[in-house]
Amino acid sequence: MTADTITAADSRINARWLIPVEPFGVVLEHQAVILQGSRIADVLPQSEADQKYRTRETVNLGQHVVLPGLINLHGHTAMSLFRGLADDLPLMTWLNDHIWPAEGKFVSEPFVLDGTRLAMAEMLRTGTTTFSDMYFFPEVTAQAAHDAGMRAQVCFPLMDMPTVWGSGPDEYLRKGAALIEQWQGDEYIMPAIGPHAPYTVSDQPLKNAVALAERTGAAIQLHLHETAFEVDEALKATATRPVTRMAELGVLGRNTQCVHMTQIDDSDLEQLVRSGAHIVHCPESNLKLASGLCPVQKLMDHGINVTIGTDGAASNNDLDLFGELKTAAMVAKVVAGDASALSAHRALELATLNGARALGREQELGSLVAGKLADLIAVDLSDPFLQPVYDPASHLVYSNHGRAVSHSWIHGVPQLQDGRLTRIDVPDLMLRVSEWRQQILS
Amino acid sequence: MTADTITAADSRINARWLIPVEPFGVVLEHQAVILQGSRIADVLPQSEADQKYRTRETVNLGQHVVLPGLINLHGHTAMSLFRGLADDLPLMTWLNDHIWPAEGKFVSEPFVLDGTRLAMAEMLRTGTTTFSDMYFFPEVTAQAAHDAGMRAQVCFPLMDMPTVWGSGPDEYLRKGAALIEQWQGDEYIMPAIGPHAPYTVSDQPLKNAVALAERTGAAIQLHLHETAFEVDEALKATATRPVTRMAELGVLGRNTQCVHMTQIDDSDLEQLVRSGAHIVHCPESNLKLASGLCPVQKLMDHGINVTIGTDGAASNNDLDLFGELKTAAMVAKVVAGDASALSAHRALELATLNGARALGREQELGSLVAGKLADLIAVDLSDPFLQPVYDPASHLVYSNHGRAVSHSWIHGVPQLQDGRLTRIDVPDLMLRVSEWRQQILS
Repeated sequence: MTADTITAADSRINARWLIPVEPFGVVLEHQAVILQGSRIADVLPQSEADQKYRTRETVNLGQHVVLPGLINLHGHTAMSLFRGLADDLPLMTWLNDHIWPAEGKFVSEPFVLDGTRLAMAEMLRTGTTTFSDMYFFPEVTAQAAHDAGMRAQVCFPLMDMPTVWGSGPDEYLRKGAALIEQWQGDEYIMPAIGPHAPYTVSDQPLKNAVALAERTGAAIQLHLHETAFEVDEALKATATRPVTRMAELGVLGRNTQCVHMTQIDDSDLEQLVRSGAHIVHCPESNLKLASGLCPVQKLMDHGINVTIGTDGAASNNDLDLFGELKTAAMVAKVVAGDASALSAHRALELATLNGARALGREQELGSLVAGKLADLIAVDLSDPFLQPVYDPASHLVYSNHGRAVSHSWIHGVPQLQDGRLTRIDVPDLMLRVSEWRQQILS
Repeated sequence: MTADTITAADSRINARWLIPVEPFGVVLEHQAVILQGSRIADVLPQSEADQKYRTRETVNLGQHVVLPGLINLHGHTAMSLFRGLADDLPLMTWLNDHIWPAEGKFVSEPFVLDGTRLAMAEMLRTGTTTFSDMYFFPEVTAQAAHDAGMRAQVCFPLMDMPTVWGSGPDEYLRKGAALIEQWQGDEYIMPAIGPHAPYTVSDQPLKNAVALAERTGAAIQLHLHETAFEVDEALKATATRPVTRMAELGVLGRNTQCVHMTQIDDSDLEQLVRSGAHIVHCPESNLKLASGLCPVQKLMDHGINVTIGTDGAASNNDLDLFGELKTAAMVAKVVAGDASALSAHRALELATLNGARALGREQELGSLVAGKLADLIAVDLSDPFLQPVYDPASHLVYSNHGRAVSHSWIHGVPQLQDGRLTRIDVPDLMLRVSEWRQQILS
C-alpha cells in the first residue's frame, strides 16, 4: 500500500458497535464511519480504515453503538411548553376544555419559537435528528429548525376553523403555499401540508390540499382514525369511513402520512395497501389518551410502511424516541399475540429507514451507507445499568433511555458531543421556558 | 416561642414539592421532612419547622419532589445478569430454550450475589427502596439485601422439579422454613414463600406451603394467570381455572400476592375479591412476552389491592420502576377505554402504599407520615427536559426517567446522594459483571 492510495476525509468515527440498518438486522463491531462534508464517505472495519483514510479528526467511541439518527415523524413541537398541563383526560375533553383554550390564549410567534427550541433540545439530546411538525406559525418552526441545523418536515395546519394562525382554509392554504415556495428544495426543511383530521376539514379544502400537493410535490400528513369515536361519528353522519372518504378525495397516496390509525378494518387495510400511504404510529399518545391500539405487525405483514412519532409532549409526555420504540415494540407483541412481533431491529427500522421512506428520502437518509447524508448518533453503552451487553440492538430498544445518547451529527455537523448540545443555548432557553410557565400558570 | 419548645432531631430535608401519598392526591410545597433515627418524626411546612426543630443536618432539595421510596413487588433479581440475552421470543420458548438452560448452567451462589447487587444498584439509582425477589439461593439474596441496607421480601422458590437450589419440593420447603426462621422479624428482610406457578407445583407442595404460611405468618407470592395458555391448559387437564384451584387449596388470602393476572373472568374476580389477595401488576413483562393485559382499573374498582413490579431484567429489560409506572398508567387507560383510568396519583399509590399493604406493612411504609419508617426518595425536577413543571405528579409518571432520582433514604440511612450510591461499590461490581458476561457469552 502506497501513500497515494490513502484518501483524505474530514472525520473518522470509531464505533465499538455499529447498526447500519442496511443491511437489516446486523450488528457490526469495531467499524469506522468516514465523513466527508455532509455525506458518509465510507463505512468499513477500523483496520481497513487505517490503511485507506487519513482524516482531519477522529472520534473514538469505544463503548458506544453508532446508528442512523432517529426520525420522529409526528409531533406538535411547540406544545412542549404545555408538557403535563392536563393529564388523565379523554381526547375530546383534553382538546376542548384544556389544550384548545390554552392554545387560543398563549400560542403566538414567540411561543412557537421557544417551544420549538425546547422540543428540539430534548429531541437532539435523546437521538432524534429529523422531526416532523404540525402546528401554528409553521414559518417560525421552519426557520428555528434551519437555524439549529435540524432536519424537519414542517406541515402547515389546515382546518375549517379560524385559529391564531389564520381565518380559515383559504388563508391557511395561501400561507402554506408560500411556506412551500420558500423552503422547497432545502436540504434541511421539508415543507408539507397538514390537514388536521377528517372531522375538522371539509371536502373542498382537502381537494385544494391535494391539488397543492400535486402541484408542488409536498407531502400530506394528517391525523386519521385516531379513535373509534372518530370512525363511528363519520359512519353516523355520512355512512362512510374516514379512510374511504380520504381515498375518494385523493388524499391517500405514496406521498401521504396517516398518523395514528388505531382503527383498521379489512376495507381500510385494502385502501392503505393500494394507495401506498405511510402510517405514523404514535403508541404512547394512543395509550395515554385511550385512543386505541395500532396493529403494527399486521400492517407491516401487508407491506405497509410503518414509521413512528412521539406526538406532542402534551400527550406523551416526553419526546424521547427510544422510550417510544420500547413502548411500540412491547405493545406490538401483545396486540399481535406474538412475542416475536416487532423485534428490536424492526423497531429501529421504524425510526430510521421507514421514516426516511415516508419522507421520500430513503436514498439519502435512514441508514449508514456510503453516499448517504451524515445523520448519525452514538449511544454510550458503558452505563452500569445497561450491563451486561449481549445484544446492542436489544439494549437500544428495551433497556435504553434517551439520555444515554452521547453524540450526534446532522448533515455532517456535530450537534451533540458527550451529551452536550452544541447549537442550542440551554441555560438561556430555560429562562424563557420559566417565563412561559409563570405566564401560563397565572 | 422559647428554647425549650425546640425539638432536636437527626436530619431535616427541605423539599420544594412533597407528595406524601397520604392524604391521597396532594402535592405540598416548601415542606420539611424531619428524620429521627429510622423514623419520620414530622412532615410540616418549612416555616413551621424553623420554629419547631433543630437538626444535626439539613438537606436542601430546592428543585426536587420528595415522595415515599418505591416498592417493586415482583422480580427475579439476579436475572439482571441475563439482561437482553434473549428477546422477541414467546414465553415458553424463552423459558424452555433460553432462560432455563442458562440458569441450569450458570446460576450459583456467586451468580446470585453479583446479580442481586447489580439489580439493587439499578433499583436504588432509580428510586426503589423495597423490592421483592423470587429466585434460587434466596439465602444469598436476603444477606445481600441486608448488607446493602435495602428492604426486601425474599420468596424462596417452590416447584416440583429439581433445580440448582434443591432436589424438589421437600428440600425447597425445608430450606425455605430455615430461611423464614432466620429472618422473621427482621426490619429489612421479609422472608416469604414463592410457589412458582400452578402449572409447576402440585397440590401437596401447595398445601404444605399454605401450612408453612399459616404457621409462620410468611406471605405467599406466586405467578398466576400469566397467560391465556396457562388457563386453557389447566381447563383442558382438570376443567378447573388455576385461580379456582388456588382458592380451593387455600393459597389465596390476605397474605397472598398474585403476580401477573392478565386473564380474569367474573369467577376469578369474585374469588380475588373474597380472598383479599393482592395483585402484582407487571405491565412491561406482560407486553414484552405477549402474555396479555391486566385490567388494573377494573380490579381497583372492585376494591382489590393492586401493586406493581418490574419482573426480572431479562423480560423487561430494566428495573426502573418509574418507567414501569408510565407503562402501567398508559396501558390501563387503553384497557379501560378511559383516559382518566389509573391517574398519575393512583399510579404512584401502586408503587408505594399499595405495595406496603401487600407486604402487611402499611402502618410502617408507603407514605410520608410522622411515625412511619424513613424510606423516601427525591427526584430532581430541574432537568431541562422536565420543563416546564405544572404538576410534579404528572412529571413523575409521564415525563420522568428513573435517573432523575437524586436522593434516597432507607430506614433513615442515606442510600443515594446527588445520584451517587453510598453503599454499593459500582466500579468493583462492573468488573464482576464483565466477568459473568464473558463466561455466559463463551
